[in-house]
Amino acid sequence: MDALLYWVGLVAVAVNALTGVLDAGRKQMDLIGAVMVGVATALGGGTIRDLLLDRNVFWVVDQTYLLVALLAGLMTFFAVRKLPLPPRLFLIPDALGLALFTIIGTQVALQWHAPWLVASLMGVTTGIVGGVLRDILCNDVPLVFLKGELYATAAWTGALALIAMQEMGVSGIISAWIAMAIVLLLRLLAMRYNLTLPTFRQPNT
Amino acid sequence: MDALLYWVGLVAVAVNALTGVLDAGRKQMDLIGAVMVGVATALGGGTIRDLLLDRNVFWVVDQTYLLVALLAGLMTFFAVRKLPLPPRLFLIPDALGLALFTIIGTQVALQWHAPWLVASLMGVTTGIVGGVLRDILCNDVPLVFLKGELYATAAWTGALALIAMQEMGVSGIISAWIAMAIVLLLRLLAMRYNLTLPTFRQPNT
Amino acid sequence: MDALLYWVGLVAVAVNALTGVLDAGRKQMDLIGAVMVGVATALGGGTIRDLLLDRNVFWVVDQTYLLVALLAGLMTFFAVRKLPLPPRLFLIPDALGLALFTIIGTQVALQWHAPWLVASLMGVTTGIVGGVLRDILCNDVPLVFLKGELYATAAWTGALALIAMQEMGVSGIISAWIAMAIVLLLRLLAMRYNLTLPTFRQPNT
Repeated sequence: MDALLYWVGLVAVAVNALTGVLDAGRKQMDLIGAVMVGVATALGGGTIRDLLLDRNVFWVVDQTYLLVALLAGLMTFFAVRKLPLPPRLFLIPDALGLALFTIIGTQVALQWHAPWLVASLMGVTTGIVGGVLRDILCNDVPLVFLKGELYATAAWTGALALIAMQEMGVSGIISAWIAMAIVLLLRLLAMRYNLTLPTFRQPNT
Repeated sequence: MDALLYWVGLVAVAVNALTGVLDAGRKQMDLIGAVMVGVATALGGGTIRDLLLDRNVFWVVDQTYLLVALLAGLMTFFAVRKLPLPPRLFLIPDALGLALFTIIGTQVALQWHAPWLVASLMGVTTGIVGGVLRDILCNDVPLVFLKGELYATAAWTGALALIAMQEMGVSGIISAWIAMAIVLLLRLLAMRYNLTLPTFRQPNT
Repeated sequence: MDALLYWVGLVAVAVNALTGVLDAGRKQMDLIGAVMVGVATALGGGTIRDLLLDRNVFWVVDQTYLLVALLAGLMTFFAVRKLPLPPRLFLIPDALGLALFTIIGTQVALQWHAPWLVASLMGVTTGIVGGVLRDILCNDVPLVFLKGELYATAAWTGALALIAMQEMGVSGIISAWIAMAIVLLLRLLAMRYNLTLPTFRQPNT
């Protein structure tokens, strides 16, 4: 389980760095600026989780994560100058990164003996904070909170499902795969069919 | 004192979650997005204080705070869909939340043996960071820094008054109530009479 | 070395508080609001570094930093009301603050036995995060990431040069001065000759 989580985590870091660089590009950032936004997107969620849980920050302990984020960011930057990428292409890796990070974050918090509600929120934090940081650094309203995206909703549902399954005795690996599939499916369905939660509406405005 | 601080803290959390959800609503966020902004508004200030002081984060240790923030956020979201709320109504709970959080934050920092200037800034941090986070997440210039609001000023005056009173031997509960009243009064007066501090002015621009 | 770093650090704090207050002024903030943005600009980078490395936050341990940031912020606020300052004047202290903070941040991380890549990023963090915070609080796209500024690039080059020199056995003080000069020179050259790194360009947009 742990070795799997490690490799899956590296993939998620690379995927998130890619989405960060792509978004930074729209704001006329230069090479290092875009790569920095990519690194913040890739490592931000797990960093906040580790600070909140008072763990050692994962990429300070193991430089590999930082290296992967930097390399993925650099490669994206130069690849995009050569290859035309359809704008919607990055939505799939983005959904994948959300699913991976959410499950890893929940799992880490559970192993740290955080209470269940906190653990589920740590999963959501790990999953979405990178994207929130990216949008703040690019001066946008964070995408993850906007209606019709089901971003935070998908992450939270998956995190709660993981915790419920482990409580019921489902094995670690199986429950992790199922929960990941739930996040991914919800997010993809939201994109495909434009699903929405109730939006905020103030009758008096 | 401690039991009182605890209950007062829960009320402040609920009140701040309410203001966060109300503000998030103006940005077309969906249910979970608005609730997340509410939770960040409610817990953000105390979280930053605990990270800076190297304490355990209060809502990770005690899930009750998180539960209260979530429930208050959910209830606000649905209540607002049914009841028309005058827009200025939330300014009173907002001022109350500022006063409560500022005094609690200062008190916590003093008990943690932070030096007095740091303790006063921890009070301000606990009081205003939630609102700053809310405004950043909603992509606004933070309200608390704008002229004519006396936001940070009210918080800082109250925090310094609390420290001065305790230094002079006034009992914990009495000094806390007086300091809270000072913050609340300054903030309400600023709203009522549009009090302002000197604004920044560059003669050459 | 340590005593020198200490005094140089205080100067860097004052300089960064000055730039924060100047920028906050453009957003119609009042006295306390502008000073708070100045304090965040001055202490933000080192604070994030200390949180990430799990050190005690430097200005909580030693109040002097906080006092210097507050006083520098206040003095800037009132000085600017009397004296006309040419807008480009603050770019020189800003570049100086970047150089000082980057080298101090890298040095602190190395003494904390962070691995080299992490240490270099801690230098960049200490150098630029204050300015990023300032721009986020003022609701701008962070200047440091924009093209043609070489901000993060100058910081990173200097941090890596410091690490390389110390690895090769150059003494602490000499390597620190040389690395500081590198950051300062790169930043000043970038401003003077409008040097740029490759900008992001998507062929399909």
